[in-house]
Amino acid sequence: MQSSDIAMTATPRLKAVVFDAFGTLFDVYSVGLLAEQLFPGKGEALAALWRQKQIEYSQLRTLAGRHRPFWELTRDALDFAARKLGLAMSEAAGTQLLNQYSCLSPFPENAAALRELKALGVPTAILSNGTPQMLEVSVRSAGLAGLFDHVLSVEKVERYKPHPDAYAMGPAALGCEAREILFVSANGWDAAGATWFGYTTFWINRNGQPAEALDVSPHGSGDSLGDVVEFIRRRRPG
Amino acid sequence: MQSSDIAMTATPRLKAVVFDAFGTLFDVYSVGLLAEQLFPGKGEALAALWRQKQIEYSQLRTLAGRHRPFWELTRDALDFAARKLGLAMSEAAGTQLLNQYSCLSPFPENAAALRELKALGVPTAILSNGTPQMLEVSVRSAGLAGLFDHVLSVEKVERYKPHPDAYAMGPAALGCEAREILFVSANGWDAAGATWFGYTTFWINRNGQPAEALDVSPHGSGDSLGDVVEFIRRRRPG
Repeated sequence: MQSSDIAMTATPRLKAVVFDAFGTLFDVYSVGLLAEQLFPGKGEALAALWRQKQIEYSQLRTLAGRHRPFWELTRDALDFAARKLGLAMSEAAGTQLLNQYSCLSPFPENAAALRELKALGVPTAILSNGTPQMLEVSVRSAGLAGLFDHVLSVEKVERYKPHPDAYAMGPAALGCEAREILFVSANGWDAAGATWFGYTTFWINRNGQPAEALDVSPHGSGDSLGDVVEFIRRRRPG
Repeated sequence: MQSSDIAMTATPRLKAVVFDAFGTLFDVYSVGLLAEQLFPGKGEALAALWRQKQIEYSQLRTLAGRHRPFWELTRDALDFAARKLGLAMSEAAGTQLLNQYSCLSPFPENAAALRELKALGVPTAILSNGTPQMLEVSVRSAGLAGLFDHVLSVEKVERYKPHPDAYAMGPAALGCEAREILFVSANGWDAAGATWFGYTTFWINRNGQPAEALDVSPHGSGDSLGDVVEFIRRRRPG
């Protein structure tokens, strides 16, 4: 556990926790296993480039005001990634890989950590770029059904993170201020965006990545959802 | 020359040409040579990641409404890239690399192609994410001074491409409609953004990259600025 955070006095009493989904609750690189079966020796590269383009396309589209649902741009990103790596991807293989996005592996500590938050009486939500259907299937297939009070998809506002309209869905659903909500993400850019927006933030840095150079720092960081529970517990005395 | 374009009837008579700067007129990977001297074996990786983060940071900042001048975020991107690659970069080495961004190598055909456009009587402009000072120094050090009618920096509107406010600077400066302007970029995402905005577009694809999967296609493509001149010439019958 490599937990570090700023002085407790700097953060208000936290009333709720909002989780990013892809990368934070669900392991986006778990598609690499199937990718490796389909394209031996190229699975890891395909999974990494696919994810990179998926994020890039979401941001480009919101910047340009050209929204497209996350499911469709995830397909676009896969299409580009396969061509870039020179892989001849059949329609069937593409569909198979895409469907994996609805049953990504959850991180092993998820369920226990979410149950601890429930026991502490802390409302929880997901706030994700994914479509409502992607999120519903993902939560269910990961065995996390019933552990979130809200599952929020930016599809409703048609703006991807880090657009403020996307982040605004959290306080609106939870009925409290952004700074009273702990926003948890394993994506450094997402933690930065949420900090800019005004959330109290926690960056899950599972692989010892360097911090983004974006002139803001998350209020806390650690390497698993367990550290999130610890961070919350210290701010909910009694 | 791998020039392909849509039927001439689909594009209006072109009245001006607007060029992206970094990657299109100036070789952003030419910093790799200095990077290789400073960090043997890592120069190419550093140049590539630096560029990727530079673009990412510009887009994230505009999305979140957190503008920062391109010069500064280029430094931020370099800082992140060095840490990600585990390179111990001194202040002096960082400054040396950053200063290279003001004297990037121009592509060899630039001057001749720009002079041909001048001879054809076609007004030209640069429309770039770079700061005015970066662009001024780059144009001068590349020996291209006097070959552009306008050098436009998005710093004026504090929005990076592909935000529409950035692209709107072209028609405003040139006094004609976007579709009457050929927007030229070697960055696939930039060509897509300009197409979405309404420009007639030309993608310079120097290294045989796959097309972006962004549901628009540039109106023309080729592998050098010479192909741009040819594209224009065919639309300005003498």
